[in-house]
Amino acid sequence: MKRYEQLAQDISALISSGALRPGDRLPSVRQASVSRKLSPSTIFQAYYLLESRGLVVSQPRAGYFVQAPRKTATHNEPGTAEPATGSTRVAISELVFEVLGTAGRADLVPLGSAFPNPTLFPLDKLARSLGAAMRKLPPERIVEDLTRGNAALCRQIGLRYLMAGVPVEAGELVVTNGAMEALTLCLQAVTRPGDVVAVESPTFYAALQALERLQLKAVEVATHPRHGVDPASLARVIRQHRVKACWFMPNFQNPLGCLMPDAHKQAVVELLARHEIPLIEDDVYSELYFGDQRPLPAKAFDRQGLVMHCSSFSKCLAPGYRVGWVAAGRFATQVSRLKLMSTLSAPIPSQEALSDYLQRGGYDRHLRRLRSALSEQQVVALQAVARHFPKGTRVTRPEGGYFLWVELPGNIDALQLHRLALAQHISLAPGHLFSADRRFSHCLRLNHGHPAPRALEAALKTVGQLAQRLAR
Amino acid sequence: MKRYEQLAQDISALISSGALRPGDRLPSVRQASVSRKLSPSTIFQAYYLLESRGLVVSQPRAGYFVQAPRKTATHNEPGTAEPATGSTRVAISELVFEVLGTAGRADLVPLGSAFPNPTLFPLDKLARSLGAAMRKLPPERIVEDLTRGNAALCRQIGLRYLMAGVPVEAGELVVTNGAMEALTLCLQAVTRPGDVVAVESPTFYAALQALERLQLKAVEVATHPRHGVDPASLARVIRQHRVKACWFMPNFQNPLGCLMPDAHKQAVVELLARHEIPLIEDDVYSELYFGDQRPLPAKAFDRQGLVMHCSSFSKCLAPGYRVGWVAAGRFATQVSRLKLMSTLSAPIPSQEALSDYLQRGGYDRHLRRLRSALSEQQVVALQAVARHFPKGTRVTRPEGGYFLWVELPGNIDALQLHRLALAQHISLAPGHLFSADRRFSHCLRLNHGHPAPRALEAALKTVGQLAQRLAR
Repeated sequence: MKRYEQLAQDISALISSGALRPGDRLPSVRQASVSRKLSPSTIFQAYYLLESRGLVVSQPRAGYFVQAPRKTATHNEPGTAEPATGSTRVAISELVFEVLGTAGRADLVPLGSAFPNPTLFPLDKLARSLGAAMRKLPPERIVEDLTRGNAALCRQIGLRYLMAGVPVEAGELVVTNGAMEALTLCLQAVTRPGDVVAVESPTFYAALQALERLQLKAVEVATHPRHGVDPASLARVIRQHRVKACWFMPNFQNPLGCLMPDAHKQAVVELLARHEIPLIEDDVYSELYFGDQRPLPAKAFDRQGLVMHCSSFSKCLAPGYRVGWVAAGRFATQVSRLKLMSTLSAPIPSQEALSDYLQRGGYDRHLRRLRSALSEQQVVALQAVARHFPKGTRVTRPEGGYFLWVELPGNIDALQLHRLALAQHISLAPGHLFSADRRFSHCLRLNHGHPAPRALEAALKTVGQLAQRLAR
Repeated sequence: MKRYEQLAQDISALISSGALRPGDRLPSVRQASVSRKLSPSTIFQAYYLLESRGLVVSQPRAGYFVQAPRKTATHNEPGTAEPATGSTRVAISELVFEVLGTAGRADLVPLGSAFPNPTLFPLDKLARSLGAAMRKLPPERIVEDLTRGNAALCRQIGLRYLMAGVPVEAGELVVTNGAMEALTLCLQAVTRPGDVVAVESPTFYAALQALERLQLKAVEVATHPRHGVDPASLARVIRQHRVKACWFMPNFQNPLGCLMPDAHKQAVVELLARHEIPLIEDDVYSELYFGDQRPLPAKAFDRQGLVMHCSSFSKCLAPGYRVGWVAAGRFATQVSRLKLMSTLSAPIPSQEALSDYLQRGGYDRHLRRLRSALSEQQVVALQAVARHFPKGTRVTRPEGGYFLWVELPGNIDALQLHRLALAQHISLAPGHLFSADRRFSHCLRLNHGHPAPRALEAALKTVGQLAQRLAR
């Protein structure tokens, strides 16, 4: 642990124990530097980290103060939306394509983007791994790996499950073209056209699109903006519908950023096991935690092989390399065959590069830097939203990832705001994208991981002003 | 043109004009070397090339003789199978997976493989391009290319269409995860479950699997082992069935190796245009021609945007890189959206490497070497089949690619032969894989591109002996 992390942990312990209380001022940077015998920049880093975790708050020219604990800070947090109780045929693709058509535009501040900022990733080292690994690859391995996947990469992935204490067998891993392919193959493996699939509310639009493409029906489960899927609500949905599968994102859900408590994960997995309902778990953000350790996946509580745990390197290490995987439990053979039939194989060079990179070490060091950058940007974004958005705006404060979910005062249409923002070279992801029945038309998903802090602040100020104008 | 190619062409012209006739002996290598003022190895290369094209044949210790022309050499060529006239629900996946489960085994002589021999490809140069291109890639390009594809690569692909005289617009190109994804996305774009799709007979099993997965029905069109799809037979099928799409492989079809004459391609495209039926054209082998120039795709005759021309670099340049594309005509937007929903994007490093490699030049030089290697191996394989397989065996002699299609005498079951061969560490692709109704159970597809000539000869000898035993 680095010195600033140690210091932050010490102060965090004082806050937890009640020795430091909400409103207490922390020692000034100079004081602390002298008394702790640490450089001022180390003190600053520690305070910054505490701020990013929501434990302290800085006040200009006054210093750092202990924040009221998160759990009670609900005044500006969105509530749980009550989803429709019926199941819905999904048809949101047109809108998604309209909005996402802007994603590749280099002239935009991409607050609406789903992708992390590629400058945050070790692209140089990956490029070296690419060249090196492919130069020494025995040619026959290319054909062997096309059908069975890269064995060394699978071992590396398996090792990380092992270290996290998640029981995954080598035989259940299927390497795919990103998590997206893993998720849609899982969905195909366990459903037929017309089936009902339970999703969160709001839901990641790619899940809705996959349902649409496979002619499935969505039933939304009430989802708390901080604690995610509500097990009791899920139980109700299962009583009311013949649910064939669930597609959930227990860790740092897109778009809410919510994190299910372990007890809820366990309750959901056990509930689904009693009904023999497979869970497709989208877990692409869990490496981006701001707390002390990586949250467990729901898969950790799976005893029946019913949880298909999907993840990838796209959000945490190697965007664009298109390498994902699924630990598919009892569905591994089906998923693997579906993959052979749809794309044959994940790219061999990308798999080789990742396997080489992971074996060289340094992944965890990169992840620490990445998490710290994202959590710092979150602070900037939260402050800008608080400062510039209309009165009555509510916003989540996720414990990981790079999305904020913003609930605007009721009369603002987020799609209209998106179009106005586009004219100012800023993209947004309006809430319309995240539900089959468009109940989130006054909401926004904001990607805070992209621009530099100043540009982020400036873009959010512009969006806030546009929203103010619409709110009148 | 190299000297040996010039010499081969001169001799070829003499044969065409009738100046040299079947049975005539060519000058000995020494004679020719003296009279032409060329090295003996150049002469040898020229004769070898002529042999690979089936124009001359070598006889041990006697020299090279002009071969009887191909067109009349039908005594040992398979006939056109009469396909069932009904449409069939497809269910061959189990068998395909059983047989292809052996594809990744390094201990086998892979006569059953669908993949080319990876040692035939410029893997070193591609590895260099990978490292170099990714090191200099501006990070933001990774996100931009995720949605729109690599623009430089699209230009390179477009350029090759242009040079081939095939009218393709930039806007209709969609880069995919190999041709496999292109083909299945095209199929999804133009069909719904229950629809009828016309395929060749025999058919590439991946087409049958894609139909099975999408719950489509196959109707087979009579396919000549040398000229491919018969336009008259297709017209009959269209009269009898509500055909929603065709999936054909006009150039070096898998498994027959047949090449449709341009007039047939044009007739098929015009027939389909009259009925507004889309053609999914699988054209992954056309760069592997043994003749003087690359055969035209059916797309060359498309005036309605109804032909979706699918190809890739997997069979001719970069196996395992998983970069394919489709020139999807009027269906480009749909195909592009389906791709975004199923895998998001083809791998960025692979696209960058290919774009870099193609811009550096050398692709055509590589292709010449590859074609020459494959055509030489074809001669070895044809001779071995003639020598070792049971009396009554018929075999195709494709003008490109790396497959032979073998019809064994009627009472031999190719699946049984495959299992016996496996015990001898040789894989085969039994005819069962290539039809929804298993009418090719006495046929084999042989991949002649893999082992070194001696190992190829030895493996075919073993298979021939096993077949002899089964024929008794």
